Amino acid sequence: MPSRSPDLIAELLAVANALADAARPETLRHFRSASLGAANKDATGFDPVTEGDRAAERAMRDVLARSRPDDGILGEEFGQSHGTTGLTWVLDPIDGTRAYLSGTPSWGVLVAVSDADGPILGLIDQPFTGERFLGGPDGTTLTDRSGHRPLRAGTRTDLSDAILFTTFPEIGSASERAAFERVRDRVRLTRYGLDCYAYALLAMGQIDLVIEAGLQSYDIQGPLAVVRGAGGIVTDWRGGPAHEGGQVIAAATPELHAAALDLLGDGA
Amino acid sequence: MPSRSPDLIAELLAVANALADAARPETLRHFRSASLGAANKDATGFDPVTEGDRAAERAMRDVLARSRPDDGILGEEFGQSHGTTGLTWVLDPIDGTRAYLSGTPSWGVLVAVSDADGPILGLIDQPFTGERFLGGPDGTTLTDRSGHRPLRAGTRTDLSDAILFTTFPEIGSASERAAFERVRDRVRLTRYGLDCYAYALLAMGQIDLVIEAGLQSYDIQGPLAVVRGAGGIVTDWRGGPAHEGGQVIAAATPELHAAALDLLGDGA
Repeated sequence: MPSRSPDLIAELLAVANALADAARPETLRHFRSASLGAANKDATGFDPVTEGDRAAERAMRDVLARSRPDDGILGEEFGQSHGTTGLTWVLDPIDGTRAYLSGTPSWGVLVAVSDADGPILGLIDQPFTGERFLGGPDGTTLTDRSGHRPLRAGTRTDLSDAILFTTFPEIGSASERAAFERVRDRVRLTRYGLDCYAYALLAMGQIDLVIEAGLQSYDIQGPLAVVRGAGGIVTDWRGGPAHEGGQVIAAATPELHAAALDLLGDGA
Repeated sequence: MPSRSPDLIAELLAVANALADAARPETLRHFRSASLGAANKDATGFDPVTEGDRAAERAMRDVLARSRPDDGILGEEFGQSHGTTGLTWVLDPIDGTRAYLSGTPSWGVLVAVSDADGPILGLIDQPFTGERFLGGPDGTTLTDRSGHRPLRAGTRTDLSDAILFTTFPEIGSASERAAFERVRDRVRLTRYGLDCYAYALLAMGQIDLVIEAGLQSYDIQGPLAVVRGAGGIVTDWRGGPAHEGGQVIAAATPELHAAALDLLGDGA
């Protein structure tokens, strides 16, 4: 990744915060609302699209039209537009629509700004708990009701001590599930269904591994920046770049990352 | 259940709130603390006991020693004492210790006060989000940062529309898991690993079914009162009383309850 001027990084961080600020009221307006509607985007599976999802992406696109009109945008709801700056804003207005629909505060608003090498910086925002996890070249911070603090991923190195989070068993092919289960059988504790919030917990040092499959680029770019800024590692299941999505592993330490990659093996 | 005087109910509600108030700072002090320790209570499985767990139960027992010294107490951490009033306080200082250990805000403090027929009233408190779900003879309310409001369970009657939550696949025998999966295969959406928070979501009308197995009485009595006060149904998998724990199903409507019991069938 080419080095960026501190002024540009500061501007991009401010815009990322402005995007999350704009999305918050739109997602909260419909969260736990009795009138919450859910269309079915995908004839083969359950993937509700809510009004909150669409309203939040529109609000973020309005901010970008004013503040960074020449950058590209890739949004979950309204597709891709190409810019002229080499930078693209990657927006997932509600990651975890099933959690959103269920009233569970583990969904999030995901924002990243990327070049061809992946995200330069990105964030996970949880509007209901009021937590914002923001990762960039200078590290990752958590801003919540009690203030602002830097985050560091944990230091565990043995799988037998590790806490693993995943969206399995809801996702993945049979071979992917088998690969996941090889890791699951070696760790201390596995928890399911936490969506993007799992990456925030990894950046906080609370958990040690996240393993997923079938991700879109907009699902992973914000979380990738948050975990990387906290000192963690995010790759695909072969150890390559993860910012295009697909099979993704996030780990607190190189030792855990290597041990999990070994076990994922044939599933990758 | 014999009818209770309004004065006694009001006193018991006030004590339940005082117990949850006493537990909050004790659980929050250790939540997401880097020094969080976890002992392994059970040689055959993972069941961390944290300092927060023990401190919260001690704080609640101190309140009861002052305010209701003649009632019995059944607590997860410090066992059972018998009283002389026919009433027993049932305390789970941190339900969802795996969530607590992982930093996920789906654990809760559970309190109920029971006679021989089960809970008269009870609560689920989530200290991190600041939500308290309190159910009794006059209904269930949610008190949170934005105020205080009554809750009603949802109105869905068809399994194909229902959202199901569970702690499976982490719990249950093989036959229990098979029974659970018969229901899972018929519902609209299944989510995993939400602990007591699932019952709160059911009382809010966000989700429609919770199915679990292997519960202790202190795991279910608070949630039972919260769901029942909101108009939902909580029984064991045969339709009998659930307040002793074991296999538990909670449903928003009689129709969903009957349809799920039919499918659980042989597993019960």
